[in-house]
Amino acid sequence: MRMGVSKTMSTLVDVHIEATELKRFCGDVFESLRLEKGDAVTAADVLVSADLRGIPSHGVGRLWRYVNGLRGGQMIPDACAETVSETDMSIVVDAKGQMGAPVSVRTMEAVIHKASEQGTAFGCVRNSNHFGIAGYYAMMALPHDMIGLTMTNTAALGVPTFGRQVMFGTNPLAFAVPADREEAFVLDMSTTVVSRGKLEVYDREAKELPMGWAVDKSGQTACDPGSILEDMFHRIGGGILPLGGINEEHGGYKGYGLAVMVDILCAVLGGAPCGPAISDTETTSARVSHFFGAIRIDRFRDAAGFRSDMDAMLAQLRSCPPAEGQEQVYYAGQKERLNERAYLEHGIPINGTTYSQLLEAADEQGVTPPSIVAR
Amino acid sequence: MRMGVSKTMSTLVDVHIEATELKRFCGDVFESLRLEKGDAVTAADVLVSADLRGIPSHGVGRLWRYVNGLRGGQMIPDACAETVSETDMSIVVDAKGQMGAPVSVRTMEAVIHKASEQGTAFGCVRNSNHFGIAGYYAMMALPHDMIGLTMTNTAALGVPTFGRQVMFGTNPLAFAVPADREEAFVLDMSTTVVSRGKLEVYDREAKELPMGWAVDKSGQTACDPGSILEDMFHRIGGGILPLGGINEEHGGYKGYGLAVMVDILCAVLGGAPCGPAISDTETTSARVSHFFGAIRIDRFRDAAGFRSDMDAMLAQLRSCPPAEGQEQVYYAGQKERLNERAYLEHGIPINGTTYSQLLEAADEQGVTPPSIVAR
Repeated sequence: MRMGVSKTMSTLVDVHIEATELKRFCGDVFESLRLEKGDAVTAADVLVSADLRGIPSHGVGRLWRYVNGLRGGQMIPDACAETVSETDMSIVVDAKGQMGAPVSVRTMEAVIHKASEQGTAFGCVRNSNHFGIAGYYAMMALPHDMIGLTMTNTAALGVPTFGRQVMFGTNPLAFAVPADREEAFVLDMSTTVVSRGKLEVYDREAKELPMGWAVDKSGQTACDPGSILEDMFHRIGGGILPLGGINEEHGGYKGYGLAVMVDILCAVLGGAPCGPAISDTETTSARVSHFFGAIRIDRFRDAAGFRSDMDAMLAQLRSCPPAEGQEQVYYAGQKERLNERAYLEHGIPINGTTYSQLLEAADEQGVTPPSIVAR
Repeated sequence: MRMGVSKTMSTLVDVHIEATELKRFCGDVFESLRLEKGDAVTAADVLVSADLRGIPSHGVGRLWRYVNGLRGGQMIPDACAETVSETDMSIVVDAKGQMGAPVSVRTMEAVIHKASEQGTAFGCVRNSNHFGIAGYYAMMALPHDMIGLTMTNTAALGVPTFGRQVMFGTNPLAFAVPADREEAFVLDMSTTVVSRGKLEVYDREAKELPMGWAVDKSGQTACDPGSILEDMFHRIGGGILPLGGINEEHGGYKGYGLAVMVDILCAVLGGAPCGPAISDTETTSARVSHFFGAIRIDRFRDAAGFRSDMDAMLAQLRSCPPAEGQEQVYYAGQKERLNERAYLEHGIPINGTTYSQLLEAADEQGVTPPSIVAR
């Protein structure tokens, strides 16, 4: 199963699949690739949670990458993660090349457990792989009346302010805060303007990039996604700009600084490679690092009062008068939760290309394909 | 002393003043305004540290605002800050309208002390005032081999993605990490594209704003700084855009989310007003909130090894090949430290307008004016 997204397949019909069925299917695929039952269930839950929240770029559309990674040995299904160091408020875990999701869930669980006793705790995971949406782990803190924090570095594709070579990844961070009647505040963002996936979409559609997304090998703003991706991949020069864009006029040094901050907390604090040392090649997957944190709210104030004040803040934000031509102001996590509710009720929309990949995976791995919702 | 920066004064001659002398002078001014000696020294140190680091927007050019605030009663020189809640890893302080700097230094000291025992700790300060550069407090963690974190909310002037009313401040965050031979990594950034001061400069110079800095009262990108400032101040509509700019194309929702994150940690966690409830008016100063944190590095790995890996990371960043037309890539905090070294040696450059304000303050407060460096 070596496909990316093929153009000829985009004419296939979109379907809806129930979340539980999609999880069952992904779990079966992971089990067929020698993951333990519990890890397979966890990896499936993280993957499908992205689709549920309306972030298909990190959902089952990536299943083929995990399948290839597990088959090709870049992800090691039965690697035994090792705790490198541990105190009552910290843990550093070496994932030994495991899939990212299971080791990340276990580490965030440990962080939450430590925080429940110590008030706050942090954990680093190194030598890991793509872990899906960062928000998943940050949100694990919510039922415990904690603030959750997640970061990860990724293969380098971001160019620093005034530079022309990649020096950091999209390096996302997620920050989750419980509310009461309102949805939880869940910020889940890369620290670059866009991700590589966005450039790939523009390349497939033969569209020019907006100014301020990327630079070419000379370090100037450039709009041809194909040549940027090519030169970036071969480290000839050029890459994606940090949040804030090129140079300093719109604050590009801020996104650059945030990306490095994420790299420090994930990789340098965890004792792992960072920056341009993190790369995907044709045959190997990046060995990325993650960072997790949790803070107990009731160490600062009554948690119920906090949640009630969060309600007031978030209600005020979504009541902000919209700009002319816009319908509504949202707060972080609000749209995603609306998607989740709708998709839990009506099934998750899966585009035809992705669905055909799922059927192919089912066939190759000998698992029951996902049943679709009758329309 | 009610002046802003007047156009007629900009013809005055720039001078250099030694850092110690500038601190002596500011301390004397603060003492003359009924601050305790220790608090006066602290406030002066924070103020002058901004000039030393090449951030004059937060330096002694603001002295007149503090003088007016202390004289007008918006800042209460002898207010007695109160600890509202405290555990071994947390503290919430009510500043009771004190100046921002002294209560912030004391709170960060408490956070560092708690972190030295617990591994990590956080503190909130509410009912405070402008505290200068956020980086000052984050950097207090550096000599302790800790990572330092500071945030503050500010008077609302930022417009959320798809909105047209101010809902948050420039809400800066600072993040400081020790290295060994390299300078410390010190990120100190607002989460909006620019600050109000930048719009004021463009207004004085009758220049159009770059696209993507601000929106008018209809919520559309606008370039006239004067009318934007006017409408923003009176809450008619419009304001500054979050980092990432307008709408979603360049990731404006990320800066918006970061600004709200800062507000949550400073104000909601500290039990204080947030968002549009924070405003400066003609007669009152915003009662802002701050957030401080420290993390011991050696709870994760050997601190010397960490600093050595930081050196390698930072050396690699500044060695990144520069874009055509650029001389050098910097990492966060590097330029500021270069300024600091030069200014400690040769004196701090103070522009003529600011210098004349200092002389006026000296006269009005009956303190010895700052002597200038002979050229």
